[in-house]
Amino acid sequence: MRSIVEVIAAKRDGATLSEDEIRWVIGEFAADRLPAYQMSALAMAIFFRGMTPVETGVWTDAMLRSGLVLDLSALGSGRVDKHSTGGVGDKISLPLAPAAAACDVIVPMVSGRGLGHTGGTLDKLESIPGFTVDISVDRFREILGDVGCAMIGQTADIAPADKRLYALRDVTGTVESIPLITSSIMSKKLAEGIEGLVLDVKVGRAAFMKTVDDARRLAEAMVAVGEQMGKRVVAYLTRMEEPLGHMVGNACEVRESIDVLRGGGPEEIIELVATLGGAMVELAHGVGHAEGSRRIRQVLQDGSALERWERMVDAQGGRLAELPESTGETAILATDDGFVGGIDGLEIGLCGVALGAGRVRSDQAVDPVVGIRVDTRMGEEVKRGQRLATVLHGGAGAPASALVERLGAAFSVVDRAPASEPLIIERID
Amino acid sequence: MRSIVEVIAAKRDGATLSEDEIRWVIGEFAADRLPAYQMSALAMAIFFRGMTPVETGVWTDAMLRSGLVLDLSALGSGRVDKHSTGGVGDKISLPLAPAAAACDVIVPMVSGRGLGHTGGTLDKLESIPGFTVDISVDRFREILGDVGCAMIGQTADIAPADKRLYALRDVTGTVESIPLITSSIMSKKLAEGIEGLVLDVKVGRAAFMKTVDDARRLAEAMVAVGEQMGKRVVAYLTRMEEPLGHMVGNACEVRESIDVLRGGGPEEIIELVATLGGAMVELAHGVGHAEGSRRIRQVLQDGSALERWERMVDAQGGRLAELPESTGETAILATDDGFVGGIDGLEIGLCGVALGAGRVRSDQAVDPVVGIRVDTRMGEEVKRGQRLATVLHGGAGAPASALVERLGAAFSVVDRAPASEPLIIERID
Repeated sequence: MRSIVEVIAAKRDGATLSEDEIRWVIGEFAADRLPAYQMSALAMAIFFRGMTPVETGVWTDAMLRSGLVLDLSALGSGRVDKHSTGGVGDKISLPLAPAAAACDVIVPMVSGRGLGHTGGTLDKLESIPGFTVDISVDRFREILGDVGCAMIGQTADIAPADKRLYALRDVTGTVESIPLITSSIMSKKLAEGIEGLVLDVKVGRAAFMKTVDDARRLAEAMVAVGEQMGKRVVAYLTRMEEPLGHMVGNACEVRESIDVLRGGGPEEIIELVATLGGAMVELAHGVGHAEGSRRIRQVLQDGSALERWERMVDAQGGRLAELPESTGETAILATDDGFVGGIDGLEIGLCGVALGAGRVRSDQAVDPVVGIRVDTRMGEEVKRGQRLATVLHGGAGAPASALVERLGAAFSVVDRAPASEPLIIERID
Repeated sequence: MRSIVEVIAAKRDGATLSEDEIRWVIGEFAADRLPAYQMSALAMAIFFRGMTPVETGVWTDAMLRSGLVLDLSALGSGRVDKHSTGGVGDKISLPLAPAAAACDVIVPMVSGRGLGHTGGTLDKLESIPGFTVDISVDRFREILGDVGCAMIGQTADIAPADKRLYALRDVTGTVESIPLITSSIMSKKLAEGIEGLVLDVKVGRAAFMKTVDDARRLAEAMVAVGEQMGKRVVAYLTRMEEPLGHMVGNACEVRESIDVLRGGGPEEIIELVATLGGAMVELAHGVGHAEGSRRIRQVLQDGSALERWERMVDAQGGRLAELPESTGETAILATDDGFVGGIDGLEIGLCGVALGAGRVRSDQAVDPVVGIRVDTRMGEEVKRGQRLATVLHGGAGAPASALVERLGAAFSVVDRAPASEPLIIERID
């Protein structure tokens, strides 16, 4: 086997690393025996040279095995999770997990926190007073058995090599590597003891992947690694330009999710929940995707998804009746007549961060109450003075005028309605 | 100015770094405020993306200014040094510096130690009992004033950022980058207070640069940086396949150098000393190169170079009369009749390391006495049983038979004499 310097130089020169080499590198790094300066140089070489599907699979497996791998087989089969690469207003997991559970899918969901312009499921859940995402593996297993779904944060036990590597990549300009992104996501998800995984790979200005080609490459890499590890994986590329639904924040996104669980809410949220949830049912129970989607829409209508949600929140200590409300509003008004031609989700996400609904550094707290409501949709006809969006106030009161101005600039009003773009771009499996 | 992560990502994506950014990166790294894992990621990005001549010049200047820059202007003008990228049997500095000094060039030479298959001037000098390369700057200045040449090691004061960065590159697979090699060499050399520099860029199997194209790129980059910093720089590409001269080792190379200083020695050593020394005289005194070379050959013949050498050794504490001698010999014999078709300098260098004449790690000591004498030349007709080379024994006595065998395999005897190749390939200025 090559020395670590030879391994770095080999990858730098475009060679393929052996399985032994990859397992050794990840093992030594996880055990704090491989200096960070060698790992960062290797990560940069991987950024430039890539990894083959086999290398990526081994890398993923080595990171997965650096920690605890849940064995949930006692719960029976049909264990499927969903992962999104992150967007603005992306509250999909909240209605999706209970809806899938109501269709007899077991959903052991390990979620993340918001960072930068994208929100995080854990932050949204924690806006419910009492809700804890920090529960033991035994309790997680118990709730999954009782309710069919549970949502926790990544513990120190799950894929610690990934945690360490992600922190290093974040400060060394090596985040944007498809094989490294793939192995980071898949090592965490496949440690959950699932049999199948549905991926929502977001594409657009407000997403991590800006182009369909890049998103497709990432989706294909993740599907390939999943299959290599004996899991069924389906990926959807979905549009992320304007926010998903009306709400961007934490408690306000929980409210919008409950609207969907009550059979209402924005049609695009329902469409995405039905598409991704349909695939979860498909993977769990071997039915066609159309049938899976039909079942998801059904449980959103008949109250059984809502009932799972309430039981899950209750089991995790949340008191829904105490969900905080905003204390005031600031309206953003149209300054011209016309049609909404653009809603810049990236800018709205960044305005949300500036309000306190998100964070720039991972050690920052978020304000559960503040948020932004988008009151118009793309292509909608608006009159001068009509409300485009609303800032939902928290304890700090009305936002600074610069922020209001910035938020207004995220909307463009044009003479002609733009062509509408489909939400679901393509399926990869 | 961009943050360090943005700087790394910018270089990774092919952007040019600003002067402020480069000076800041080097300054923070030299002050131990920039983590090694960020510097190694940046070095790997530079490996892939390169640096412009202006970036390389600024990088060099920033490393140079991280430490002491000698001011030798009080010694008068004509201060020129030589640098070789390293080879096997490369003892050129030993006769060259005193020969140039005898032609009224002031030669403030800061040299390195051997590493891997290449030898180092400091190790050779230290085989002379009492010789010290660790003298104060004041004493260095004094010897330069008295003798015209002096040879010291890189002190902690000279380009400390380079020392730190080189150690990091060595363990992160980022040595082989032309702009980083250029700035490493030039920052040390230009800290010597010289006005001009002659570069010997070695090309071939036993050199760091394996192809003429790579060597030319390095030479051009070094010449460009020198000019950018207001110094006259001339580079020669020279062949490094078989060892230079007959001797490979330490004390034995000093002896061969003294032969040259006495007007004898191998013609290729004289040719290289005259070519490089001629350029030093040219840069120092504005004469043509042919006239410079003529003067160098003259001082090798008339004893004035030898006299400078003896005064320099004396000034630096060396006792030439006590130069150690080998204690025995093992002959390597030809196993066929024919012509010497190949002498593998790389293998001979590595055999020298195995004998103890060189080192693999920078903290190892070398044995001053052991060495290898190459008793034949390329193209020479040999008979079966004729001596090809000789191992010079030290305290450990005769070498292991595997080493003798390996050394024998470094020579090939063929049916037809190979075409001879010129030693000097081209000049770049």
